[in-house]
Amino acid sequence: MSTLKIAVQPYKGTRDFYPDEMRFRKLIFQKISDLVEKYGYEPYDGPMLESFDLYAAKTGEEIVNEQLYSFEDRGGRKVAMRPEMTPTLARMVAKKAKELVRPIRWYSIPNLWRYENPQKGRLREHWQLNVDIFGVDGSAAEAEVLALAIEILKGFGANATMFELRLNHRMITDTFLHSVLKLDSSQLHTVAKLIDKKLKMDPSVFEKALVDIGLNLEQNQKLLDFFSLSLAELRGAFPELEKPSQQLEQTFFTLSAMGYGEYVRFVPEIMRGFDYYTGMVFEIFDKHPENRRSIFGGGRYDNLLDLFGADSMSGIGFGMGDVTFADFLQTHGLTPDVRRENIVALGIFPDSRTEDLWRLAQELRESGIIVEIPWDMKKIPKQIQSVEKKGIRYFLLLGEAELSENSVQLKDLQTGHQEKINRDQLLPRLREILMQLH
Amino acid sequence: MSTLKIAVQPYKGTRDFYPDEMRFRKLIFQKISDLVEKYGYEPYDGPMLESFDLYAAKTGEEIVNEQLYSFEDRGGRKVAMRPEMTPTLARMVAKKAKELVRPIRWYSIPNLWRYENPQKGRLREHWQLNVDIFGVDGSAAEAEVLALAIEILKGFGANATMFELRLNHRMITDTFLHSVLKLDSSQLHTVAKLIDKKLKMDPSVFEKALVDIGLNLEQNQKLLDFFSLSLAELRGAFPELEKPSQQLEQTFFTLSAMGYGEYVRFVPEIMRGFDYYTGMVFEIFDKHPENRRSIFGGGRYDNLLDLFGADSMSGIGFGMGDVTFADFLQTHGLTPDVRRENIVALGIFPDSRTEDLWRLAQELRESGIIVEIPWDMKKIPKQIQSVEKKGIRYFLLLGEAELSENSVQLKDLQTGHQEKINRDQLLPRLREILMQLH
Repeated sequence: MSTLKIAVQPYKGTRDFYPDEMRFRKLIFQKISDLVEKYGYEPYDGPMLESFDLYAAKTGEEIVNEQLYSFEDRGGRKVAMRPEMTPTLARMVAKKAKELVRPIRWYSIPNLWRYENPQKGRLREHWQLNVDIFGVDGSAAEAEVLALAIEILKGFGANATMFELRLNHRMITDTFLHSVLKLDSSQLHTVAKLIDKKLKMDPSVFEKALVDIGLNLEQNQKLLDFFSLSLAELRGAFPELEKPSQQLEQTFFTLSAMGYGEYVRFVPEIMRGFDYYTGMVFEIFDKHPENRRSIFGGGRYDNLLDLFGADSMSGIGFGMGDVTFADFLQTHGLTPDVRRENIVALGIFPDSRTEDLWRLAQELRESGIIVEIPWDMKKIPKQIQSVEKKGIRYFLLLGEAELSENSVQLKDLQTGHQEKINRDQLLPRLREILMQLH
Repeated sequence: MSTLKIAVQPYKGTRDFYPDEMRFRKLIFQKISDLVEKYGYEPYDGPMLESFDLYAAKTGEEIVNEQLYSFEDRGGRKVAMRPEMTPTLARMVAKKAKELVRPIRWYSIPNLWRYENPQKGRLREHWQLNVDIFGVDGSAAEAEVLALAIEILKGFGANATMFELRLNHRMITDTFLHSVLKLDSSQLHTVAKLIDKKLKMDPSVFEKALVDIGLNLEQNQKLLDFFSLSLAELRGAFPELEKPSQQLEQTFFTLSAMGYGEYVRFVPEIMRGFDYYTGMVFEIFDKHPENRRSIFGGGRYDNLLDLFGADSMSGIGFGMGDVTFADFLQTHGLTPDVRRENIVALGIFPDSRTEDLWRLAQELRESGIIVEIPWDMKKIPKQIQSVEKKGIRYFLLLGEAELSENSVQLKDLQTGHQEKINRDQLLPRLREILMQLH
């Protein structure tokens, strides 16, 4: 009757996760959760909606003005769908700052929303791993967080030929712009944003932009020199950079001692978009020529709890999005297999009794085997067709004849081989067969 | 400088999940996922935002008009945060209806949003298990879904003294109202809504409401009789109810044969709020006098795909919310333990070298032990205090002396006992100790 037909497509820039995609998402994040929990990180989560004020305060202007999903609720409260997790995290830590035992090690895997123009690696809804440690100073905690980011990639089979960790210290770059180049605060902000994009720009475009901002020839040249120096050279050339350079060197030193030296490189262009970083900042970058992009990003922030009137507490953290991570794995041929394992289908003869099928199915399920029963009265060859389409290889049959003999028929749909198995022997036989598949 | 202080409370009607609560949520849903996957159900998920039209079409009026979080996005699209999962599910199935192999067995655990007045068991954001089977008729598939709901509760240690499954068939009640009482369609709708609330009302209030709707004495009496009859009696008394009664009896029969008879009862008051149910409907009800409420609800629906112009496909499904489920577990003393297992802390002496600590920690982590390192330079007794507050019982120390002897100190913070262990013996010794804790 109704002529209105509703679209089957999901909302623009979002994804439907059909079972294959959902198994992939679950497997990826389960593996990562297991890993980060070994380092003492504990799971947390917050609500999808937060007060608009939470983002207005510290999230970058571009996000708040152009990308935030915000609206008034039915009670007139201005709310927003979270575009990043850090403000929620800071709010939760601030709320219990007095009772939480330090260091606070937390992780979460929220879905985040930004009004973007959908393109490769950039969607309106994505899932993001967030790992943070609060309440500890010094280079060892920084090294732990960086090591953890590297270990996640290693856990999926990646190695130093595939990615690099690009490390910088915000105070090195900021101090250079402020105290060496003596930029005013408006120039400083604009140049900082420009540096953040430098590695994606043609060098001549970058230099032209510096002139447009009003840098003179000398400033322009000094800035280009800055990007060509090693950490040790910078420290020698600019005494103003002594303190942050020394801190960063210590982090490098600790990481090397822990065995991660080959993955890490000083890259003074790394700024990170968020304004709240105050110390070390980093990105993990995909080195593959066809997927040159950042897959993890993070750093140290010191003042996030001030917003809530809580005492300052230093935090270090990073985020990693599911879309870019999946692209990384695919680019390097590291995508894990997400087929279902340990699965059989139980066919139905016209004379099969539901209770007999159920009893057999429950027995196998209790032993860890997935058992699907079609429950429809199609003929056996039709049932087998459906089972094959689902990628299930083994098909069990339990009819009147088998019941009276206390046996079961087991058919391998790939080879066509069929065997009659005594009921007592079914479980060990199935285990043996299913084990061989892995 | 800023005088604006942001609130640390989450948005009204939502929850922050600190690690204890998040471990609980994870554990509950992990256990349930593992169980439903054994029955062949596969995970899926959809986006948090959907087109407003998706809900306007089939979700109940009360929800759309009073409880939906809907707004216009920056591109002028009218969107809504999902208040239930079934419309997304139907959209996804409709989109791939031709290629999906039946029966389609899917489950998901979305967070859902409704603008409610927060009260016990009712929040604005909650997580809900959704289990559905599509594309199969007959009582066996219905029995499977109902059995699965029962098995979930059994899996947490619940038994038939704690809950019951209340089963009805929408066509029994609807046909009775339409063909026996001969209500017009407006009365029918109002009486159906009233029946849905009958079990929470005083009988006299219910009867008074029937009179107010315009039912005469005879209709009123017949309706009260209807609620007092068994399924077999109904079938005998009203030939109009023959078909749905027979279907429902078959479902009862199958469930009993499968061994679930003791959990199930015919309750003709069960209607379910959603208008899309067309066959069997059910709720699982907590029998505890202090928590008498529904914890699962679902049924069979036949026409959900029509909305999308796809061929009809029958579905059976249920939902279960995390808040009411947690209340059920707590009421019956079934709340599982969510303390972290297999965990040690690794202390830091002033002479400890980061790389030695890291090597030891990595070795233990690879063997499945959680290792926390404080990374701050507090004195050992202070470190121990923090570790104890976190509920960690075992504390390892590796200083210069231990390194030179190739040993480690292991302190049991509960008994105070400290032992020196040869490095080779540490892993077996720790395993032995940590095993005893479970």
